[in-house]
Amino acid sequence: MNIILLPQNTLSTAIIDDKTRVMHLKQVLKVALGDTVKVGIKNGHLGTAVVSNIHDSSIELSQIHCTIAPPAKLPLTVILAIPRPKVLRRLFLDMTAMGVQHIILVNSYRSEKSYWQTPFLTQLDNYIHEGLQQACDTVSPTVSLKKRLKPFVEDELPALIAGKQAILTHPYANEQFTQVWDNALPHVLVIGAEGGWIDYEVELFKTAGCQAAHIGNRILRTENAVSVLCGHALLTSQ
Amino acid sequence: MNIILLPQNTLSTAIIDDKTRVMHLKQVLKVALGDTVKVGIKNGHLGTAVVSNIHDSSIELSQIHCTIAPPAKLPLTVILAIPRPKVLRRLFLDMTAMGVQHIILVNSYRSEKSYWQTPFLTQLDNYIHEGLQQACDTVSPTVSLKKRLKPFVEDELPALIAGKQAILTHPYANEQFTQVWDNALPHVLVIGAEGGWIDYEVELFKTAGCQAAHIGNRILRTENAVSVLCGHALLTSQ
Repeated sequence: MNIILLPQNTLSTAIIDDKTRVMHLKQVLKVALGDTVKVGIKNGHLGTAVVSNIHDSSIELSQIHCTIAPPAKLPLTVILAIPRPKVLRRLFLDMTAMGVQHIILVNSYRSEKSYWQTPFLTQLDNYIHEGLQQACDTVSPTVSLKKRLKPFVEDELPALIAGKQAILTHPYANEQFTQVWDNALPHVLVIGAEGGWIDYEVELFKTAGCQAAHIGNRILRTENAVSVLCGHALLTSQ
Repeated sequence: MNIILLPQNTLSTAIIDDKTRVMHLKQVLKVALGDTVKVGIKNGHLGTAVVSNIHDSSIELSQIHCTIAPPAKLPLTVILAIPRPKVLRRLFLDMTAMGVQHIILVNSYRSEKSYWQTPFLTQLDNYIHEGLQQACDTVSPTVSLKKRLKPFVEDELPALIAGKQAILTHPYANEQFTQVWDNALPHVLVIGAEGGWIDYEVELFKTAGCQAAHIGNRILRTENAVSVLCGHALLTSQ
């Protein structure tokens, strides 16, 4: 947590009363009365606040002063096959921290149907909140859930990738990822779950306008692959 | 688990009797008698084996036939400030999967002293084993633990980085990571723990011959940063 993210209607004072952040302020930052902490206003600017009261289960911040613009989002949409529920938190935290603009979870043949029932899907906003506080950002990515792959790819994807470069990562593609990457365009990355995409899905995405590319013959865990691929967008955006 | 890694003295048959892999073969791969599975011989080649017996707590493989060379390691050494024990598994798994050649854990001002006492440090070989089985590799990275930072950086680092490009990632560096990256050289990446390096440590590494570079103003979790940075080495090696 590198900033405390405050609600978007915050004026000059705020009360932090959720357990996680009170604990963080007390035990990690070890704040004392009068200390300055880094804050951000949701959808607004970054700046500082002063610790003006410390209670058992809440902390008051005042003199909130935010004038620094948050970092720009990456021109990047990630279309991700819904992964195992236990990795959703880290994936959303990290994609948010790296500055992904739009995250679309889709169904895939190799994702289990039960994944769509996980209660973790109701916690995505919390994971995003963690990611914003990690990266000193204030603006959430847009999140879309698409439980039916074929109508999404056939009916919605072509408009979504217009004017962008859409790359599906696939170990058996002929071309290599960085060789097809065109840094002049915004990107849409299509990333499979453990086990990857089946041939039918690869063809579906290709027909809709996506290129397939591989990242070599090492097979990475989904979280690792997502960091490597979004990291490429992050590093080449600078 | 994309291959079953077998001991390096394996000839034509092997018995898998550790719980994790027996469960994986039975429940994820749902193997039956006569099925072919992908295997690798530790420090040797990749290939296939046939399931020749299925017992309650073990599985026998025979007709082991390995002739494919494992993927090349990246020309990359990672020097990492010892992180929180709970992230060691994922870090070692992912660095191994990406093909890092040498991993050096070092002390840092912002790493807690207690981290060196964690029992997870005795499990590094297991995490590496998982990473090899993930990435279809058979050769472990070299691992070194350096509990005293100053003598390591002053006495050992200069020889270690000779002929290589050593980059320390630091948010307040003037130069950007991909702009200093020289793809013609092997690399040494120096990566901080949560909270980064203190000025004294940055100067110590610089004096020993490292360049400092930043990856932008978004602060990433250690695991995410490691994947982004090693991922750059992975993608540009192809």
